[in-house]
Amino acid sequence: MLKKLSLISIACLASSSFAVAAAPKNIIYMIGDGMGPTYLAAYRYYMDNPQTKAVERTVFDELWIGNASTYPDDDTVVTDSAAAATALSSTHKTYNGAIAVDHDHKPLTTMLEIAKAKGMQTGVVVTAQINHATPAGFLAHDKSRQNYDQIADDYIDNKVNGQIVADLMLGGGTSYFIRKDRNLVEEFKQAGFHYTDSWAGLKTLNQLPALGLFAPKGFNSALDNPEPLPLKQMTEKALELLSPAEQGFVVMIEGSQIDWCGHANDIACAMAEMHDFAEAVKVAKAYVDAHPDTLLVVTADHETGGLSLGAAGHYSWKRDVIKKVKHTGDYIAGQLLALKDETVMYQAWLGLTGLELSADEQRLLSKARTQGQKALATAVKQRIDHHSTTGWTSGGHTAADVPVLAYGADKQVFAGFQDNTEIAGKLIQFIQQKK
Amino acid sequence: MLKKLSLISIACLASSSFAVAAAPKNIIYMIGDGMGPTYLAAYRYYMDNPQTKAVERTVFDELWIGNASTYPDDDTVVTDSAAAATALSSTHKTYNGAIAVDHDHKPLTTMLEIAKAKGMQTGVVVTAQINHATPAGFLAHDKSRQNYDQIADDYIDNKVNGQIVADLMLGGGTSYFIRKDRNLVEEFKQAGFHYTDSWAGLKTLNQLPALGLFAPKGFNSALDNPEPLPLKQMTEKALELLSPAEQGFVVMIEGSQIDWCGHANDIACAMAEMHDFAEAVKVAKAYVDAHPDTLLVVTADHETGGLSLGAAGHYSWKRDVIKKVKHTGDYIAGQLLALKDETVMYQAWLGLTGLELSADEQRLLSKARTQGQKALATAVKQRIDHHSTTGWTSGGHTAADVPVLAYGADKQVFAGFQDNTEIAGKLIQFIQQKK
Repeated sequence: MLKKLSLISIACLASSSFAVAAAPKNIIYMIGDGMGPTYLAAYRYYMDNPQTKAVERTVFDELWIGNASTYPDDDTVVTDSAAAATALSSTHKTYNGAIAVDHDHKPLTTMLEIAKAKGMQTGVVVTAQINHATPAGFLAHDKSRQNYDQIADDYIDNKVNGQIVADLMLGGGTSYFIRKDRNLVEEFKQAGFHYTDSWAGLKTLNQLPALGLFAPKGFNSALDNPEPLPLKQMTEKALELLSPAEQGFVVMIEGSQIDWCGHANDIACAMAEMHDFAEAVKVAKAYVDAHPDTLLVVTADHETGGLSLGAAGHYSWKRDVIKKVKHTGDYIAGQLLALKDETVMYQAWLGLTGLELSADEQRLLSKARTQGQKALATAVKQRIDHHSTTGWTSGGHTAADVPVLAYGADKQVFAGFQDNTEIAGKLIQFIQQKK
Repeated sequence: MLKKLSLISIACLASSSFAVAAAPKNIIYMIGDGMGPTYLAAYRYYMDNPQTKAVERTVFDELWIGNASTYPDDDTVVTDSAAAATALSSTHKTYNGAIAVDHDHKPLTTMLEIAKAKGMQTGVVVTAQINHATPAGFLAHDKSRQNYDQIADDYIDNKVNGQIVADLMLGGGTSYFIRKDRNLVEEFKQAGFHYTDSWAGLKTLNQLPALGLFAPKGFNSALDNPEPLPLKQMTEKALELLSPAEQGFVVMIEGSQIDWCGHANDIACAMAEMHDFAEAVKVAKAYVDAHPDTLLVVTADHETGGLSLGAAGHYSWKRDVIKKVKHTGDYIAGQLLALKDETVMYQAWLGLTGLELSADEQRLLSKARTQGQKALATAVKQRIDHHSTTGWTSGGHTAADVPVLAYGADKQVFAGFQDNTEIAGKLIQFIQQKK
């Protein structure tokens, strides 16, 4: 029995190397910024149907196939989004803050540049400003992620065989693209790009190349945004526009603000971003079902916040507390500060969070209100964390390994443990096999 | 190209179902108690060779194939070791504290009982007392993990077809096995068990059934233990003793005290336990290489401590700080308290930790020393955490998903995301296929 098995295993191993040799036509590369593995567990329990005994699987669980290390090249062990984006786009480790350049500030070729050189169509879709670290690591080269204007300039100045690298860019950033010294939107229009800055306009976009900028910088947080599931909407449109590409396409789609919620240690905020990202992943998965020559890879650049489910010795995590919270801590603090009469604060709190507080806790909130927006937002989130037993260790990143998810053609090459540079390496190998 | 690929994929899928049908002869089931995914990342960076550019992979990374959820059956989301052991041994979710019983305290059949009924040889190897929650979940049935004496009694009273369930038990626990009301060691000897309570005796054990109890309760922490790598030593002996089993064997080997270090929020302690566990996993992996009809599965019951690499906004994790620490926080505190002269405390501190402190930090330690063992141990660990940028959110467990590692025959069935009950389900399916 075992001998027979071994023979079949060898045949499969051989066919697996063969499979690697057959490149998928299209690549959908999704990055949950800050989405450490605990965010996947949190989202699963957050979405659980309490009417059933077992906890339902999420789309992330269905696709989870591996894990990846994320360390940068500067001995800190903990990466920032720029170094991680460079690793995920170019296969090269670099220093924190670097946008697709090495220690000598020499440009590192990114997979979107390689794809463009191969005649593929390319895109980036984000909910941050489109010139933020992660998309920048695919489209620009700069010694510092802080050089927002120069990075935006690079989106049109950095060319591959005389062509702009991206055929499609959707995200925020008008304040960087329409400046006193340079109007990049006009330049993109001159270069033939269709442009929109409204959600109604997104719906009518029907041709590439295209640029959509829907906010001055990053979008409103998903939990505060009147526009429902912006990443899902943009993902649908992006795949519709890229689908006809004869030589195939490579698109990087980022759940940008999972990270921002992590930095803010705001669990309700994080769950709303995870939901938009999950819905976008579902759209991509359905695209793969309809187009089996497409490969979907989902990962994260790093973990943010040191999130834990359970804290301070309590063996519980109470999703019900989080599900009732209607806005981010910052937004709630703003609403409570705007009240003219402090005596109605608790009533307003109940309307915004559904969370009953003890008299002592109400006093904590009242005191924080006298200390301003930042202190009050912190107090708001601490009450939610306390009642849901959510833990955080940092307002920054951590060195946790991140999940690797894959679906469709060649997904098996992403199974098991790998470094983040290897994810890029496998994808670039596929792209380079194009004729 | 793609059509050809699909055909080969289907062939492999078919052979993969075929593979599931062919049960491995032996199963080595290793559980890192409390070993959440961040412990694997921490151990990788801890072991990194600073002379090389890339971070070397550990044995865990080589075998990492999936991840598992761990929630118990009592709506807390966060499991304890008893409910998790029950899930991992019986496929049944139960309440926290339950030792292989359901909500009505009805016994749930464990995989070691099933293996014994199939004529296989069985064993448990741990560094806790052998009647602690995890091994108890494989060998006993009790409504509470706290009933240590009753659980120890069950190890000889709970029979399958008139036979004691385990052929081999190695761990701690003489204080529970040799009691005023009952001497279980004598009873095991009467039942034909070879017994030892020394490391020299372990080396000469050459026949089953056997019982080895090397400490009154749990072992000394690996970092404080003069006996090097006790789990590795016991694993070598266990596989030597179980190897001749004609019908094959099932052994559960636990890195028990990774969890205890997590509860203590002691990172140096945790890394030493991870090292002993890693060395034991290497022994098991080598056994599989020599015996390809053996399946090795490694997982954890839950995460402990909410460990993070990086904390408090700092983008770094400094393994060098941790590598210099020679003992656990508790041990160091004991040593510092035992000094007659407080003025030599800092010198003693430097000898024990190699960690230079500011004058303010030295004053913090001196103050904690006046407050007794517990306060001083906490202060010791806080200094190490601060300088290494290690974060913790809890002295208890969290609901993080845990790593699933597999090697050898049929390892593919453990790939991807699964619930902890499914790990048990797959293993029991293999055991039940025995004639």
